Amino acid sequence: MSAYASLTVHFGRIAAMSNAIGILQWDSDTMMPKGAASSRAESLALLRVLQHEMAAHPQLGEWLEAADGDAGVGDWERANLREIRRVWTAQTALPADLVEASSKAISACEMAWRQARADSNFLALLPFLAEVLRLQREAGAAKGEKLGLSPYDALLNDYEPGGRSEKIDALFDDLAAFLPGFTEQALAVQSRHPTPAPLEGPFAIEAQRGLGQRMMAALGYDFDRGRLDVSTHPFCGGADNDVRITTRYDEADFSKALMGVIHETGHALYEQGRPAAFMSQPVGQARGMVLHESQSLLMEMQACRSPEFLGFAAPLMREAFNASGPDWEAGALWRRYTRIERGFIRVDADEVTYPAHVILRYRLEKALIADTMPLSELPAAWNAGMRDLLGTVPPNDRLGCLQDIHWPSGGWGYFPTYTLGAIAAAQLFDAACQAEPDTLPGIARGDFAPLVGWLRTHVHAQGARLDTDELLTRATGRPLDAAVFKAHLARRYLAD
Amino acid sequence: MSAYASLTVHFGRIAAMSNAIGILQWDSDTMMPKGAASSRAESLALLRVLQHEMAAHPQLGEWLEAADGDAGVGDWERANLREIRRVWTAQTALPADLVEASSKAISACEMAWRQARADSNFLALLPFLAEVLRLQREAGAAKGEKLGLSPYDALLNDYEPGGRSEKIDALFDDLAAFLPGFTEQALAVQSRHPTPAPLEGPFAIEAQRGLGQRMMAALGYDFDRGRLDVSTHPFCGGADNDVRITTRYDEADFSKALMGVIHETGHALYEQGRPAAFMSQPVGQARGMVLHESQSLLMEMQACRSPEFLGFAAPLMREAFNASGPDWEAGALWRRYTRIERGFIRVDADEVTYPAHVILRYRLEKALIADTMPLSELPAAWNAGMRDLLGTVPPNDRLGCLQDIHWPSGGWGYFPTYTLGAIAAAQLFDAACQAEPDTLPGIARGDFAPLVGWLRTHVHAQGARLDTDELLTRATGRPLDAAVFKAHLARRYLAD
Repeated sequence: MSAYASLTVHFGRIAAMSNAIGILQWDSDTMMPKGAASSRAESLALLRVLQHEMAAHPQLGEWLEAADGDAGVGDWERANLREIRRVWTAQTALPADLVEASSKAISACEMAWRQARADSNFLALLPFLAEVLRLQREAGAAKGEKLGLSPYDALLNDYEPGGRSEKIDALFDDLAAFLPGFTEQALAVQSRHPTPAPLEGPFAIEAQRGLGQRMMAALGYDFDRGRLDVSTHPFCGGADNDVRITTRYDEADFSKALMGVIHETGHALYEQGRPAAFMSQPVGQARGMVLHESQSLLMEMQACRSPEFLGFAAPLMREAFNASGPDWEAGALWRRYTRIERGFIRVDADEVTYPAHVILRYRLEKALIADTMPLSELPAAWNAGMRDLLGTVPPNDRLGCLQDIHWPSGGWGYFPTYTLGAIAAAQLFDAACQAEPDTLPGIARGDFAPLVGWLRTHVHAQGARLDTDELLTRATGRPLDAAVFKAHLARRYLAD
Repeated sequence: MSAYASLTVHFGRIAAMSNAIGILQWDSDTMMPKGAASSRAESLALLRVLQHEMAAHPQLGEWLEAADGDAGVGDWERANLREIRRVWTAQTALPADLVEASSKAISACEMAWRQARADSNFLALLPFLAEVLRLQREAGAAKGEKLGLSPYDALLNDYEPGGRSEKIDALFDDLAAFLPGFTEQALAVQSRHPTPAPLEGPFAIEAQRGLGQRMMAALGYDFDRGRLDVSTHPFCGGADNDVRITTRYDEADFSKALMGVIHETGHALYEQGRPAAFMSQPVGQARGMVLHESQSLLMEMQACRSPEFLGFAAPLMREAFNASGPDWEAGALWRRYTRIERGFIRVDADEVTYPAHVILRYRLEKALIADTMPLSELPAAWNAGMRDLLGTVPPNDRLGCLQDIHWPSGGWGYFPTYTLGAIAAAQLFDAACQAEPDTLPGIARGDFAPLVGWLRTHVHAQGARLDTDELLTRATGRPLDAAVFKAHLARRYLAD
């Protein structure tokens, strides 16, 4: 067997292990009875250790060296070798004692965070978070040394391969200058319309589930290779050829579950559309979190808050909930789904104010990793940033710097991908509408095939073959760039 | 760390792997979308190979030798060492190429069997089954050589450690002499009562599920450590502290799901009652398939086809299905649940005729493994055995020797445990009634605590510490013995 073939067999086994872990993780979040938690934690820990051992196996280094000279290795194969090398480097970059110390510090910090958030007590979190931060800095430095990157860029690289803070700084500085004035303007336009009262429920869960499944089917989700279930925190997970999404239902408000299902379906379409021939290989995986988030936001924000979509969805909503009246007309629903508000909580934010939440976190975590700001100053810096970027200051740390689990759980370098994803979503949707003129008319009929067909070709089926900017350039004519996103916001929120 | 401690840590990891496999297998049978089948098969195959490597690890031999001399190893620990040695011996007895050949032959044979059964075509199955049989003989010989057992007993030993065909021959010869005449008598008694017409449905699935869950709760099933779901073939599976059972619902007949749920709950109570301190160790596992089947049959046949149980259950059934009338009185329901019939199909058989199905299969598989009967003669031998044991001959092989998947799927030596389990169930239930006089009055009130408390102590919490006969002797005063089973049948089926 050639060295390249040996590598693909080995990575096929790693994929089989990832698939097992993915389903067990899904089960933990959806089906598992509470008494099984500690047994399950042991099973997952064992499989993760075995997976790490497989991906960090010394033999891989030899195979990689030999495979570079393998004859007959084509375009995709070369890209696969590059991605294999990336995975192997990431898995071997950290000394085992750092991985273990980090895992323990994160477990302790997550526990402390739950209590600290409930009590709105940042000082109680501080020592735990300081330890996580210290180890993240160390991990970033260790990875950075191998890759020739700054510690922050090395952490970012885990979520967004090829992502660089220098580019993000430029994008975010531009947006940070644009958004406060824009938000002001958009709120002024919005104030000319009355604030709608909540739609009158209750909305039966079965009807909500049925409507969600109807939308998933319209978007092109393949139910033979996935499921829809319920979990406390919605996610898209599972395995190759088994992409499972979850939501949670609120009988008083069906929109959260509906828009959540559409968002997760966007993620799932990416996973279901990965290249079949490389499904279990590193080059067949999704490119990174920027494009992943672009696919969910493209569906949720670009496609499914459009007047066209609401023209299609309004009668289905009325039918599902046996509702009628002016509030249930497409136009009124569209106004409802494009309301904006200056809030404290990122996960509740609309697409206009969301970037401010992200830019704030990005700037803070970059300073903390670079050690140019003491962690003890986080609450004050948070509130100052909220004032500058959003014009509103949270009354306490529970609604401020304690709201997200990312930092306590070691997710440093993740936050920027949300807004980079929103920017990419605007760019890709615009390009799809131009390349496939039936995109929006299709959505108005409930036919997503023109849109999804274009995404399949230009995004999903590309796997990890290209880097994000190269993929975007081929698909949209330019690398990641906020111009289309800003134009989209202006069109949607400044028109009356 | 002592050698014994090293072994317990190692077997803790093997248990964590078994738990992962158990949940993935459960998911395959209950939740998995059909498009995921081949990815899942790869994940399960990988985990099973890793599990085998862990259980057959050469280091175990050294630890086992050293642990024999470990100071401070008590009663349970010695039994654990014995069980660890048993697992290790079983895992190392077979050469890898035999395991692989067997696994391939079984896959091919199961496929051929599905078609052959549908077509009632034994000849189409013959070459595939011959190959499985040949490899089972080889496996039995290899294991038998290590253990000093005949090939058949070596196969049996995998399902029922310590089981020996010499003892089974005696028990089954006795039953085979007793049952034909008994069945005749019981049918004569039954003929004095009119055959009841089916209860009038449809019976809504939600109502059936609710009734099943009500019964599970009454029996003492712990819903914090398990679930009830739906699958084509009902089973009890899952993991430590996560014992999941399944059933299937028929809107025309609620009794199958109800009695199926009670049967699987019996299995689940055994699993949930295993000793907590040894949950992940070999000595903390269920003893074998005889006692496992005894626990399901004790609940389904002994406890829950009693007049006492139907006194408790009848009002709940009426309430669940909003039913009334004489057919729904406890006495009429009891007659319905104790009807017997000479049928062709084992899985549909009642407790009187079931042993005949099992004795037939046991005698045939023993002769086939010993090579004292050519496989080509199976259909004729089957039909002759049905005539002798049951007085009825199937009109074709679909209703005859092609009905079960056990032989095509390599389950040789399994069949006798069904009837040995029924015998043990009668013995244990009788002993429980004597030791805990509130057992039957409790059941009449829907309170299974007296029964289950006794089973917890005398069966479940014993794990695999004792062999089956020793456990039965301590619990009931004698080893496995059909006298109580025969007395139970006489009491239930010969009284008018």
